[in-house]
Amino acid sequence: MLSKDLPDIESILALNPRVKHHAQIISTASKKKEKKHWKRNPERNCGSCVKLENNFDDIKHTTLSERGALREALRCLKCADAPCQKSCPTNLDIKSFITSISNKNYYGAARAILSDNPLGLTCGMVCPTSELCVGGCNLYASEEGPINIGGLQQFATEVVCEKGLGVNGMTLKSLKEAGFKAVFIGIGLPQANRAEIFKGLTVDQGFFTSKDFLPMVASASKKGMCQCRSSLPELKGVVIVLGAGDTAFDCATSALRCGAKRVYVCFRRGFTNIRAVPEEMELAKEEQCEFLPFLSPREVIMKNGHVAGLQFCRTEQTEEGDWVEDEEQIVRLKADYIISAFGSMLNEPQVTEAMTPVKLSRWGTPEVNTDTMQTSEPWVFAGGDIAGLANTTVESVNDGKQASWHIHRYIQSLHGQTVDPVPKLPLFYSAIDQVDISIEVCGIKFPNPFGLASAPPTTSTAMIRRAFEQGWGFALTKTFGLDKDLVTNVSPRIVRGTTSGPLYGPGLGSFLNIELISEKTAAYWCQSVAELKKDFPNNVVISSIMCGYNKEDWTELAKMAEESGADALELNLSCPHGMGERGMGLACGQDPVLVRNICRWVREAISIPFFAKLTPNVTNIVDIAKAAHEGGADGVTATNTVSGLMGLKADGTPWPSVGLEKRTTYGGISGNAIRPITLRAVSAIARAIPGFPILATGGIDSAESGLQFLHAGASLLQVCSAVQNQDFTLIEDYCVGLKALLYLKSLELKDWDGQSPPTESHQKGKPVPRLKSLVGKGLPSFGPYLQEKTETIAACKKRLRDAGETDVVESNVSRVNMPQKPVPPVKDVIARALRHIGAYQELNNMEQVQALIDEEMCINCGKCYMTCNDSGYQAITFDPETHLPSVTDSCTGCTLCLSVCPIIDCIKMVIRKTAYKPNRGVPISPVC
Amino acid sequence: MLSKDLPDIESILALNPRVKHHAQIISTASKKKEKKHWKRNPERNCGSCVKLENNFDDIKHTTLSERGALREALRCLKCADAPCQKSCPTNLDIKSFITSISNKNYYGAARAILSDNPLGLTCGMVCPTSELCVGGCNLYASEEGPINIGGLQQFATEVVCEKGLGVNGMTLKSLKEAGFKAVFIGIGLPQANRAEIFKGLTVDQGFFTSKDFLPMVASASKKGMCQCRSSLPELKGVVIVLGAGDTAFDCATSALRCGAKRVYVCFRRGFTNIRAVPEEMELAKEEQCEFLPFLSPREVIMKNGHVAGLQFCRTEQTEEGDWVEDEEQIVRLKADYIISAFGSMLNEPQVTEAMTPVKLSRWGTPEVNTDTMQTSEPWVFAGGDIAGLANTTVESVNDGKQASWHIHRYIQSLHGQTVDPVPKLPLFYSAIDQVDISIEVCGIKFPNPFGLASAPPTTSTAMIRRAFEQGWGFALTKTFGLDKDLVTNVSPRIVRGTTSGPLYGPGLGSFLNIELISEKTAAYWCQSVAELKKDFPNNVVISSIMCGYNKEDWTELAKMAEESGADALELNLSCPHGMGERGMGLACGQDPVLVRNICRWVREAISIPFFAKLTPNVTNIVDIAKAAHEGGADGVTATNTVSGLMGLKADGTPWPSVGLEKRTTYGGISGNAIRPITLRAVSAIARAIPGFPILATGGIDSAESGLQFLHAGASLLQVCSAVQNQDFTLIEDYCVGLKALLYLKSLELKDWDGQSPPTESHQKGKPVPRLKSLVGKGLPSFGPYLQEKTETIAACKKRLRDAGETDVVESNVSRVNMPQKPVPPVKDVIARALRHIGAYQELNNMEQVQALIDEEMCINCGKCYMTCNDSGYQAITFDPETHLPSVTDSCTGCTLCLSVCPIIDCIKMVIRKTAYKPNRGVPISPVC
Repeated sequence: MLSKDLPDIESILALNPRVKHHAQIISTASKKKEKKHWKRNPERNCGSCVKLENNFDDIKHTTLSERGALREALRCLKCADAPCQKSCPTNLDIKSFITSISNKNYYGAARAILSDNPLGLTCGMVCPTSELCVGGCNLYASEEGPINIGGLQQFATEVVCEKGLGVNGMTLKSLKEAGFKAVFIGIGLPQANRAEIFKGLTVDQGFFTSKDFLPMVASASKKGMCQCRSSLPELKGVVIVLGAGDTAFDCATSALRCGAKRVYVCFRRGFTNIRAVPEEMELAKEEQCEFLPFLSPREVIMKNGHVAGLQFCRTEQTEEGDWVEDEEQIVRLKADYIISAFGSMLNEPQVTEAMTPVKLSRWGTPEVNTDTMQTSEPWVFAGGDIAGLANTTVESVNDGKQASWHIHRYIQSLHGQTVDPVPKLPLFYSAIDQVDISIEVCGIKFPNPFGLASAPPTTSTAMIRRAFEQGWGFALTKTFGLDKDLVTNVSPRIVRGTTSGPLYGPGLGSFLNIELISEKTAAYWCQSVAELKKDFPNNVVISSIMCGYNKEDWTELAKMAEESGADALELNLSCPHGMGERGMGLACGQDPVLVRNICRWVREAISIPFFAKLTPNVTNIVDIAKAAHEGGADGVTATNTVSGLMGLKADGTPWPSVGLEKRTTYGGISGNAIRPITLRAVSAIARAIPGFPILATGGIDSAESGLQFLHAGASLLQVCSAVQNQDFTLIEDYCVGLKALLYLKSLELKDWDGQSPPTESHQKGKPVPRLKSLVGKGLPSFGPYLQEKTETIAACKKRLRDAGETDVVESNVSRVNMPQKPVPPVKDVIARALRHIGAYQELNNMEQVQALIDEEMCINCGKCYMTCNDSGYQAITFDPETHLPSVTDSCTGCTLCLSVCPIIDCIKMVIRKTAYKPNRGVPISPVC
Repeated sequence: MLSKDLPDIESILALNPRVKHHAQIISTASKKKEKKHWKRNPERNCGSCVKLENNFDDIKHTTLSERGALREALRCLKCADAPCQKSCPTNLDIKSFITSISNKNYYGAARAILSDNPLGLTCGMVCPTSELCVGGCNLYASEEGPINIGGLQQFATEVVCEKGLGVNGMTLKSLKEAGFKAVFIGIGLPQANRAEIFKGLTVDQGFFTSKDFLPMVASASKKGMCQCRSSLPELKGVVIVLGAGDTAFDCATSALRCGAKRVYVCFRRGFTNIRAVPEEMELAKEEQCEFLPFLSPREVIMKNGHVAGLQFCRTEQTEEGDWVEDEEQIVRLKADYIISAFGSMLNEPQVTEAMTPVKLSRWGTPEVNTDTMQTSEPWVFAGGDIAGLANTTVESVNDGKQASWHIHRYIQSLHGQTVDPVPKLPLFYSAIDQVDISIEVCGIKFPNPFGLASAPPTTSTAMIRRAFEQGWGFALTKTFGLDKDLVTNVSPRIVRGTTSGPLYGPGLGSFLNIELISEKTAAYWCQSVAELKKDFPNNVVISSIMCGYNKEDWTELAKMAEESGADALELNLSCPHGMGERGMGLACGQDPVLVRNICRWVREAISIPFFAKLTPNVTNIVDIAKAAHEGGADGVTATNTVSGLMGLKADGTPWPSVGLEKRTTYGGISGNAIRPITLRAVSAIARAIPGFPILATGGIDSAESGLQFLHAGASLLQVCSAVQNQDFTLIEDYCVGLKALLYLKSLELKDWDGQSPPTESHQKGKPVPRLKSLVGKGLPSFGPYLQEKTETIAACKKRLRDAGETDVVESNVSRVNMPQKPVPPVKDVIARALRHIGAYQELNNMEQVQALIDEEMCINCGKCYMTCNDSGYQAITFDPETHLPSVTDSCTGCTLCLSVCPIIDCIKMVIRKTAYKPNRGVPISPVC
């Protein structure tokens, strides 16, 4: 039987879904066992806890892979007057850098971050964001919750930055003598707050302050400049950590990594008074630290000269809210080590002396003007912990940033210069920002290739003015006609595209509109275009015009538009609704004869360049483009919107629906949904008429997609839907992004795709070792395998560390290098992709590929398995115990598995080594 | 000046984003103040905590609105052999019900849930999912984390279910005498575990067990059957809760609602031994309960006959892991109330006696066979707490489900009937499941209108066989040709659509393929179609064929296909790549003359019905459909894929790229991205040729989208991309969904859209009161406003409750009613939408709308404000302090604000009350 799966395929299909015809019953007892096998989160109250000794891997929940970063950035709404920025001490323009991440413009993101915060990477990793930017995120008000801003910040700066990361005896006096004009003191609080009862206790006896302990851990776990590591303090036994600040929790989790068997975090007040941010405490809780509130240390219990325990008394809050310590209630805790993390101070006389003559507060730290960060000595500034205001790294950074401006003002004042009181700190700047992205088309110089399409963002010239102020290179006016053709719109008329499901905000994939041309008169447009050209001589204004198929009308309107001072004209031969019924727009644009004639009329009438805007709603757009070319057009715009009906409600009424009768008409689809159609149109025209300028539009929403259109043959890029989804400031991201993409071409990096580095083998953005090479088999990350995997990696880490070798998971990806060749100008990248595009028959069916699955990255969802079963070739097996998929030789390389895999680069297509033989079902024969 | 914003618009623009030219500096001191204003999460260590007294609103983080549910369901991967199901005690087919939610088929979702778990709503609300389904979610391995399964379950069952939610003296003996053949005992553990030291203490003295306390709270906070409420226990002062199970945390948070000033949760062991699930403890922590570990209660301190405190001794774990209690270390805690929540038991002699003669364990509960839930008495079954196995509600439900099957077997055995040992419990069933969705087209009866398109899911007839087994009504074969036209594919050839950005898994919005027709011979197809028809006489097989423009070839192939027993044929006149170059597919389908002739040849050759499959890549698809109609085709398929180029990498190479030269050709786009194009094509053909059957394809991915195509004029629905994204079992969701949609038409519900009820005013899925009607102004949910809002609502709640009135936030949405008219058959809904679709000029521009924003639902993102500024009419103001937007009379009803708003139904378009006057810029005049 041909129509039945063979036994080997039936066994592959065993785990494929089936429709259920009955409810299923399995006893509670069996299910209790079964669920343990598939458990991905930690077993609660487990006896056999994961051994953390020596493990200094990244454990932050916030770390993101590129895939994770893109999804998270897509969720961000890029709010107006965004509260995240208001809640960031350094006033980072968070939505701008997230916009750049969304658009794969990682340099643009890092540039925005580092402009406002030079320690952007560090802060992305250590900021207690729930108390800062994230605390204000508007998405707190939705079920999906706030954006992981710290993770995005870390991601963007890490992609771009190279990893890599005091002289005693300096005094203010010596610095002044050495000729320094200003000094900034940012030395933190160097000494630990050490209670009286710990006097004389040493590290050897089992007593550490956080200032003793953490640096020892840091220097043993991180490579220093000499690329060597010291050894970790060994804490075998029970450890008491005193305090409830971030430092205390840091000590607690570090103690586990130094071998501690159990860690108690003891603090004076209750859980409601904990100073640490929830993120820090949560990590300690996950790692099974114990917490003891309401305890105040009283006496260290010593045994044989070593710490053996600590005695506390209980604290209580009275009804009035005061705290009292009850010396009668005594609690004793056995312990082998005590780490005191009760805060920091400045009590080193040498340091205090070095700060003379700065006026100090009663805590021995400089008195600082919190506005200028200036001390009592005008030339001495201070910030960070020592200034007493900052509680976090990022606030300390901001103190430094704040001081930098006032140091500048101070030094300028020494030379009699006054500085504008409005601060003007320069933005982050690199060689990338010097890349020239201007381009000349038809003799007109465009400062950059990005402009606004003739569409809602150019409803008025005041809007175009604002767009130019933000940096847009050019703008098309909204299409206008003669007074006799004036229109009045209906409403509603611009609706959300449903092509990408329930996505809202900037991730929205398309719009549909039934809007007509401008409601404003030609007189308005002509008069105000002249104003624009006067005020923005370096920006390009192209007037978009439309008439019926009538030489007199086109001549009159084109001349009027030329006289207004427009740099060029665009003939709208493509509006897909409304105007077509009146014999305009698409009604003209679908017939090459009409297009050719209209272009000829306009060519006769004016001497400035003009472009014909084409509709994609034709059998062959190349024929229309050729007609425009023959008619004397200087280029074409490809394309206008695609005609469509967006959707119907369940009662059969459409959306948009106009009036009481709820009527609609076919509208124009714009946005990402039509990008493959416009990309095809641009490349087809470019292949057919080499050198003929094309203004691309339809799904351009980033520098990355803009470059695709340039590669496909476009010279200029028009944007509409992306602005509707967001706002005019997008232009900054597009320009910086294009500069970065062109710059990267000069580096000739291997395996990078634009600003995306090759994906390393990882889970949740954290690199993972090649387990197969360590233990000879892949292991998934759940149930018993997770335990086995963790133990194997821990053992391996220890072995490698002891042997002084590189960690198993350290990154080998090459980062940014030196330029290998000059940065290409925009004109040189146009049409570069065309040599790869051609007829089907030119494709080589002797060079075939097959799928290869990375077991380390696999999340065991089986999407590859199911699509191969129900839409392919039953060429993937799926292990019933480990849920690891594996590709068989029946794979035909169709690529569906890669296309549905939710993890980027988990599946790769690799060259097929054996000859591909199609399965013909039954042999070829002359008779059926 | 025309091209500059007027002053009133400039003031609106004050908060619109601007590109930055300098880094910004604001001092740390100012930022510390500013961030408080925008904070959305709770202030830590705040003195003025939110008053929870009397507040029994839903506080679960998991509750979802429809918008939230759709987004969450979109994230779900619908994994193979899904571990969530394996970890659910009732074995719920979780991915099926989430699939149905994704597809807005809420009845289908509820049906799947209630089939396996009759208490599906309750369990959705109370299940500790991190220890059950969610614990196994594969998305734990990705940065976005696991799916909120409980919230989805609650949502689906709540949409469908109506809200609404013992006789003493029964003994087993009396029940047997009354004629009952079997009994199930599921009475829980009714008594609290009460330690000796609490002997004799009463509620009046300030002592409660959890079994005293929680029922008092429940009956006061929830309406009973009599619609009345008792009053809450009043706990003014300090409350000690003993225990660390879920019940203890429930008592703690309930105590706050009864007025407790401070709550201490005290327990014998440490945090690492807490029995409660993390979700429960987290809520108690958020509400500022205090936790005291390592304390064992010793003596109640009484004062004037009332509880005044509790004395504990400390517990410790020895190095061996044993627990010891140190009677010397005494801790005293002042308190006004004690609630003991140290577990439950069965010690009521009356109950024990009633269970005679069942054999009891040493804990006094029945001994139960955990496989059958049978006790020592074969006719008595038990489950839940009393059976000693279940720890959670859902496990108790499963005990009952398990027992039900064995009770069935037991009763059948009494009548000498043996029951198949493989359990067959019926699925949930309602009137909706009885709806007939069959349809007759061209004399052929289709069991349902859903079939597989000629595409990768029909690569082989074995795959079609499996599809029929799952319930697909019909299938097209993959297109085959004569042996002389046999093809060999290239690879890669089917790639992920990028039209909806970084979405992966079932949310993927499109695919592009450069796959050719079948690699299998016509002989294979003809022989195996015959096999299929023999085994599936009620399913419909349509053979898809293709030849060059040659009468002999078409005649030979059509006859061969007819003879094989196919019910009908589809002529592929539309394949957009490869075949066209060989004079086939689209090369024929773009010319009406060729289409008409081919149809005539086939009409002459065969007598079974045939359909022409059309390409959308033409200027006017209606002309092609008319040609097919004239040529004698029985209908058309609309449409094949849309020609496109999906994307280019940053180095200019395409994807898919074939061979070492990395070449590509234009491919066919399928999936949701092209739905507006195909929906337009179907409706345009239906309007032009009434009654001519149309098989729709292109973006059908649910019953809801299927109904859109039926309404637009299609008779049958073909699916491909949705199956590629998931698997064949989708058909169950589609059929149940269509039944529900047709059934709902009989109810004539107001304001529902299909299965979506009207959106109530809510935040995070929880209804919110109309604050404006309470306090005369709207308030956002952050910073100082959040505090004000919470207090206002608390005061209002108290006032209403005291007055015995309905809560301010109780829902008024009408739920499912009785049918008002017969359920329509599928044929009656076809083409129903066409009367709403027509020319632009038929739209009424005198009936205009304006936007109206719901301040209660607004999340203050300002998306509406920004799009109106940069792509519209500057008709929305945005308050700089509250970030509440407001629509001015300049609104033209364009609808962009609604289209970009991230919250469903937060913005509505309402009828404009004044006449609409377009802004012409300058007046209309004869001369420019």
